[in-house]
Amino acid sequence: MRFEDYKPTGRIKNKHMLTLMDYSSEEIFELLHCAVELKRKQYARERHDYLAGKTLAMIFEKSSTRTRISFEQGIRQLGGYPMFLSSRDIQLGRGEPIRDTVRVMERMNIDEIMIRTFKQSDLEELAEYGHIPVINGLTDDFHPCQVLADLLTVYEEFGTFTGKKLVFFGEGFNMANSLMLGCAKVGMDVTICSPAGLGPKQKIVDAARAAALGGAKVVVTDDINEAISGANAVYTDVFFSMGQEKDPAKEAALMPMQVNAEMMAKAAPDAIFLHCLPAHRGEEVTDEVMEGAQSRIFPEAENRLHAQKAVMYMLMKDN
Amino acid sequence: MRFEDYKPTGRIKNKHMLTLMDYSSEEIFELLHCAVELKRKQYARERHDYLAGKTLAMIFEKSSTRTRISFEQGIRQLGGYPMFLSSRDIQLGRGEPIRDTVRVMERMNIDEIMIRTFKQSDLEELAEYGHIPVINGLTDDFHPCQVLADLLTVYEEFGTFTGKKLVFFGEGFNMANSLMLGCAKVGMDVTICSPAGLGPKQKIVDAARAAALGGAKVVVTDDINEAISGANAVYTDVFFSMGQEKDPAKEAALMPMQVNAEMMAKAAPDAIFLHCLPAHRGEEVTDEVMEGAQSRIFPEAENRLHAQKAVMYMLMKDN
Amino acid sequence: MRFEDYKPTGRIKNKHMLTLMDYSSEEIFELLHCAVELKRKQYARERHDYLAGKTLAMIFEKSSTRTRISFEQGIRQLGGYPMFLSSRDIQLGRGEPIRDTVRVMERMNIDEIMIRTFKQSDLEELAEYGHIPVINGLTDDFHPCQVLADLLTVYEEFGTFTGKKLVFFGEGFNMANSLMLGCAKVGMDVTICSPAGLGPKQKIVDAARAAALGGAKVVVTDDINEAISGANAVYTDVFFSMGQEKDPAKEAALMPMQVNAEMMAKAAPDAIFLHCLPAHRGEEVTDEVMEGAQSRIFPEAENRLHAQKAVMYMLMKDN
Repeated sequence: MRFEDYKPTGRIKNKHMLTLMDYSSEEIFELLHCAVELKRKQYARERHDYLAGKTLAMIFEKSSTRTRISFEQGIRQLGGYPMFLSSRDIQLGRGEPIRDTVRVMERMNIDEIMIRTFKQSDLEELAEYGHIPVINGLTDDFHPCQVLADLLTVYEEFGTFTGKKLVFFGEGFNMANSLMLGCAKVGMDVTICSPAGLGPKQKIVDAARAAALGGAKVVVTDDINEAISGANAVYTDVFFSMGQEKDPAKEAALMPMQVNAEMMAKAAPDAIFLHCLPAHRGEEVTDEVMEGAQSRIFPEAENRLHAQKAVMYMLMKDN
Repeated sequence: MRFEDYKPTGRIKNKHMLTLMDYSSEEIFELLHCAVELKRKQYARERHDYLAGKTLAMIFEKSSTRTRISFEQGIRQLGGYPMFLSSRDIQLGRGEPIRDTVRVMERMNIDEIMIRTFKQSDLEELAEYGHIPVINGLTDDFHPCQVLADLLTVYEEFGTFTGKKLVFFGEGFNMANSLMLGCAKVGMDVTICSPAGLGPKQKIVDAARAAALGGAKVVVTDDINEAISGANAVYTDVFFSMGQEKDPAKEAALMPMQVNAEMMAKAAPDAIFLHCLPAHRGEEVTDEVMEGAQSRIFPEAENRLHAQKAVMYMLMKDN
Repeated sequence: MRFEDYKPTGRIKNKHMLTLMDYSSEEIFELLHCAVELKRKQYARERHDYLAGKTLAMIFEKSSTRTRISFEQGIRQLGGYPMFLSSRDIQLGRGEPIRDTVRVMERMNIDEIMIRTFKQSDLEELAEYGHIPVINGLTDDFHPCQVLADLLTVYEEFGTFTGKKLVFFGEGFNMANSLMLGCAKVGMDVTICSPAGLGPKQKIVDAARAAALGGAKVVVTDDINEAISGANAVYTDVFFSMGQEKDPAKEAALMPMQVNAEMMAKAAPDAIFLHCLPAHRGEEVTDEVMEGAQSRIFPEAENRLHAQKAVMYMLMKDN
């Protein structure tokens, strides 16, 4: 099964978007198909206010530019209402147990919750105690909406996932986890290149391998040359995520993986550069690559909007 | 006069909702009637966008979940526009005198102000210098919108206030004050059970007694057994309000008043449990009671929405 | 050329509103004409939702009452959508270079940016790297939208700028800079009265003089009696702007310039008092003057709304 041959049904079984662990290849294809279609409608200025009257609560425990703007614009373009709740305005899980807050929210006509927080278990508690779809807008473990945007960007570039390879340089954290799962499940080879001791958890590697579509390869390595060889998409992320302290030893281990012109030259000739942003030029990537002809970082950022509109719509359409 | 016999006129004389001190029994009945009707319309999905084009400024000097979400959803369901202003975004009463801010607000087409703050006098200044209706979303002295939601919940349960008794366990602070006034004015017996020295101010007790409808009894006591006896609604609140410091002596004095299964067993057989939330399980209430069959905490939270829609509508309808 | 004789074309050449330095007399007249017309429509309740479907991002690095409320109400009255982004929610220029953020914003359908920040250079970077109109909502150097509101207030009072004089008492900071430019360009005499050493930068004085319309005089002095003499509009601002530390020496130098009844008595008989607010009574101005018959501070605050609607509309109308 290839994405370009897949016939969408317009349905997914999942009620939430907590992690791509829960999603089958077919379900990811449904979301990507929906994103392509919503993007087409947006550009054609075709009406698509399918979520009129619905309210999306957007809970942020960390600051955010892309997640905030894309979800707020997305729900509005779908006709719904965004309610922005920072962790300063409500004290989720501190002043009040999550299981109380979510039950209050559903009583007050909140139809969907997007949350950016630290602990994946907070999302699970939101999902368990409420009847409201919950969308992961970034946790320490996963960033599924970003990966849907990344996959959309790869597909727009190459017209297929089959036979393509994405390499991620960096720590085995939320981006590495979600990229492994997403790429494997759409049938794309994926290599996570991390310094020794900083690789992703074996449990997630195993899950990605078990779910790999059509023989897609999931490789974890600290061999930079092996990793970059033949890569069609080169991906990296900041050395230190929000909330992580700077660590000189870690920085030193990651610096050889910097995506610079020399690194890009070792990839496939048609390779594109991706980054979830924000980027720290001179650290994980050079300005030259960020601003260069292979960079797709701004289309990729835009695809956050389209991918998340698909997630919001698919999870709320039948409620 | 009983609520169930009252014929609403669709009018109240008050221009603001600062405290139930200012409200007559008839005016409270008007608000409750309106809340019942707006709730019916909401469930029936009948259009009720009576405040289209109106702007509600929501000023928060403390964080909030229920007040924030319920007012924001409420004004939107009424067709109006919520403008969320945290104390970090504007510096009410610090960077600028309240009497200047409110006069600027009315010049900029703010139609109604909801404020959660500490000092009741700040609300009075807002009301005095502006021509905009002001709604108390919680002060150190009063929480009238919460009590309207509580009364609506009691009425939905029992179909009457007459002959029913509510007991509040805790300090004589904003909730005790507003419950005394609200219950007395709708003709419901009310007992405030506080440790010695932590009871409500005599001035407010006197006001509640003076305004009690149909012989409703207003009792202040530290006798737990007397307080719980015959209670149809058992109410408590956190030991320490937002902004109050923890005080071990006070905690020790309040712990015997914890609402647990044993306490509920001493109330009337049909008793319900109420709490304005957030709750601290294991302190003022047990998890067993919170999650038990007598708990009405989530319908009560939902009634914030309906009661406040009534307040916003009644205060703005003729402007 | 006098404003009252000017025939508007409905067009300006500027793409941004960074500073009145960039604006010709004709362009300022266009904006003021538009503001007058939008104010008339607002009072007549005539529909003017010309920016339906447009999104205004409002970025605040400092707290604000007037700027926040006036832009948020203004874009809504024009039919558009305000997206409030505080510096706590996104980290413009710290977590991410401005040139990345603005390119992401335009990809996510942000149509216009209003920013209140410290450095004028941040605005310039926003304007340089994006294709989105950028509006200055206050920087350390300029406050052009405030001055457009001030000019509108002066015009409403006197029906002309010609032959009128505005005096500003205070430090040569953002308000002094923008008032000099605005008054000179509409043909009104302007005097900046600052203590020695606290006057405006010579570069901006020179620019104002070079652009003065119809022989309007631009005077910088520390002679209070010369400054107040014949003034039709008396303007002052807080001694210490947001972010500035208190400085007793500066305060002592500014105190003799306090606008009190005695000062107002030395101005022209028809003089009005203006202040950008918030004001610190007893420091730069007395309560008596703030609340007196010559005060126009609240109409002036209201004119922020109308002037900024004109700016937003003129900059976005053809996009």
